[in-house]
Amino acid sequence: MPTTNDLTLVPAERLHAFVTTCLTAVGAAADDAMVVADVLIAANLRGVDSHGVARLRRYVKGIQNGAIAARPDVTTVLEGPATAVIDAGNGLGQPAALAAMHLAIAKAERIGLGMVVTRRSNHFGIAGYYAMLALEHGMIGMVTTNASPQVAPTFAAEPMYGTNPLAIAMPTGGPCPFVLDMATSTAARGRIEQMQREGKPIPSGWGIDPEGAITTDADTLIAGLIARRGHALLPVGGAGETFGGHKGYGLGLLADLLCGPLAGAAWGRHVYGSSGANLGHCFLAMRVDCFRPWEEFIADSEQLLQEIRSAKKVPGRERIYIPGEKEAEETQRRQRDGIPLLPVVLADLARLADEAGVPFELA
Amino acid sequence: MPTTNDLTLVPAERLHAFVTTCLTAVGAAADDAMVVADVLIAANLRGVDSHGVARLRRYVKGIQNGAIAARPDVTTVLEGPATAVIDAGNGLGQPAALAAMHLAIAKAERIGLGMVVTRRSNHFGIAGYYAMLALEHGMIGMVTTNASPQVAPTFAAEPMYGTNPLAIAMPTGGPCPFVLDMATSTAARGRIEQMQREGKPIPSGWGIDPEGAITTDADTLIAGLIARRGHALLPVGGAGETFGGHKGYGLGLLADLLCGPLAGAAWGRHVYGSSGANLGHCFLAMRVDCFRPWEEFIADSEQLLQEIRSAKKVPGRERIYIPGEKEAEETQRRQRDGIPLLPVVLADLARLADEAGVPFELA
Repeated sequence: MPTTNDLTLVPAERLHAFVTTCLTAVGAAADDAMVVADVLIAANLRGVDSHGVARLRRYVKGIQNGAIAARPDVTTVLEGPATAVIDAGNGLGQPAALAAMHLAIAKAERIGLGMVVTRRSNHFGIAGYYAMLALEHGMIGMVTTNASPQVAPTFAAEPMYGTNPLAIAMPTGGPCPFVLDMATSTAARGRIEQMQREGKPIPSGWGIDPEGAITTDADTLIAGLIARRGHALLPVGGAGETFGGHKGYGLGLLADLLCGPLAGAAWGRHVYGSSGANLGHCFLAMRVDCFRPWEEFIADSEQLLQEIRSAKKVPGRERIYIPGEKEAEETQRRQRDGIPLLPVVLADLARLADEAGVPFELA
Repeated sequence: MPTTNDLTLVPAERLHAFVTTCLTAVGAAADDAMVVADVLIAANLRGVDSHGVARLRRYVKGIQNGAIAARPDVTTVLEGPATAVIDAGNGLGQPAALAAMHLAIAKAERIGLGMVVTRRSNHFGIAGYYAMLALEHGMIGMVTTNASPQVAPTFAAEPMYGTNPLAIAMPTGGPCPFVLDMATSTAARGRIEQMQREGKPIPSGWGIDPEGAITTDADTLIAGLIARRGHALLPVGGAGETFGGHKGYGLGLLADLLCGPLAGAAWGRHVYGSSGANLGHCFLAMRVDCFRPWEEFIADSEQLLQEIRSAKKVPGRERIYIPGEKEAEETQRRQRDGIPLLPVVLADLARLADEAGVPFELA
């Protein structure tokens, strides 16, 4: 395989096959393994490496140690013309999430809107993957999930809820759709881990120590989050209310209310608690042509985005990006050149292959 | 009337009657005037004085100079089982928004979800008012609107879209519902005007000058925004991407896509353009019991909020607020004590009464 500095470039198809092989080797159904591979590789292609194949170990080990059901009963527990509730049976999050988004889309196809919530689920990868499924149906997709408790509410000095991402995909004309996929924390943990690997301090306002003081030490913050010592990430907007931290906190709490109490899953500090992950997700699909003729919508939305791109730039900046634009361009690059994997990730995948008893042919 | 320092405390009912009288005097229908008064007084009661009676002049003058239709044709231009599009006929935003939210709620009552967009509308007051209408129906309400262009996208040096608020109201057990009502800019213009009145500099990261440099001078920023000289507010998270400014920008652009291209209204720089306001709004209602039995949802959501309130505090802070909690407490205070009006606001209302030919009995 070609390498760039320390990175090994692996073709997406080969990485996809490896993920599928690992998961089926430990007992996952072939169809489910394919879905997980689709979502992990999509994350790597989009440049969101924290949610790519680096996560495979957690899924494989989760199945092996019984924390994740290899062959779950996924059931629809409540259903109406525009709404449904799916129990994921503690299986892999990705197949249950795919089924839920497909159901939301099918309902929106008939009636204009569809909303499906999922309970008793596990980590589902990047939220944007599911939101983007709406695009080819001429729909807007909105997805959120809760996550393990890592974020401190405004004025709190301990983690009370997760990085609870919001993802919204909207079809538009032009080079790529609008895809906003954002953690409701200032930075996703993956980005902090990346700065940790690079040996850099993190900006003042991303995380706090157990006393509530802002920390810029990535090592201590990550170690404290993992050991659950009371360290926490801060909401979008940072500490306090001056730059809108209370808004980021409000959005994160909103996601938790939708995915926990509304979906009938765990919430707040109880996600990934003593009784298992019990993650909740929420999926919404909306048919564009129930509101506006398709061609008119496409023309207007593309003109809006084009005007935004053409706006006057601040000194030193040459582009204004539409949400999802960087990721779409990265996908093109990585589909062409391969997915760059760090030595540490590659070594971990090699060990994982060994432990799962499958061949390792990535490097 | 009692006064506190320079403030005059006016009972909400008296202020409500004054608003209604002014609007009917210039030709608005009595029912429409009542709705505008409801929304303006609700803003004052919640402590959002920038969206309270201080806005009355714009509505009265808008009707008088023909920018706002006093007796609009409000029509439903497209309708499905869960969706609808309302043309507000360039009338006051509040009555059209109320009709749209009521329609979304009626659809959700039958089918679980309802979404209604509104085009050719005007300023509708606080978005939270309409989201909160869902609460008494056992529903979650979500509302957004676009607004006059004042916010610069990440890395842009000119205003390209509005402060486009997002409001979400969710019923919960306990003392008050979850009500998140947030401008997608770091700070609403009203808050900057308040600091201007107090002669304070604004935090570094709220606004930029026409060269894209951050400004802390409230006077210059407000004057530049009013004169459209190229000054701009920044998205939630502030300048650049370090604290999530690109997320705030993404949310503001999302609101514009829903309320402009999807609703068939103006968008971006064209809101309040040469052909009129043509604001768009978006209203969504979701029935809680289509997803979870009501009692279970209420019990879980209240326990979540209670745990958040009980979290460890950062030094110097005694409370963690749930979104909407401060506003609910302010409403109780102001319902009891009256609504405090600044001398400048009171003087403006007195002039307005004179110009509209109605009696002024507030001070």
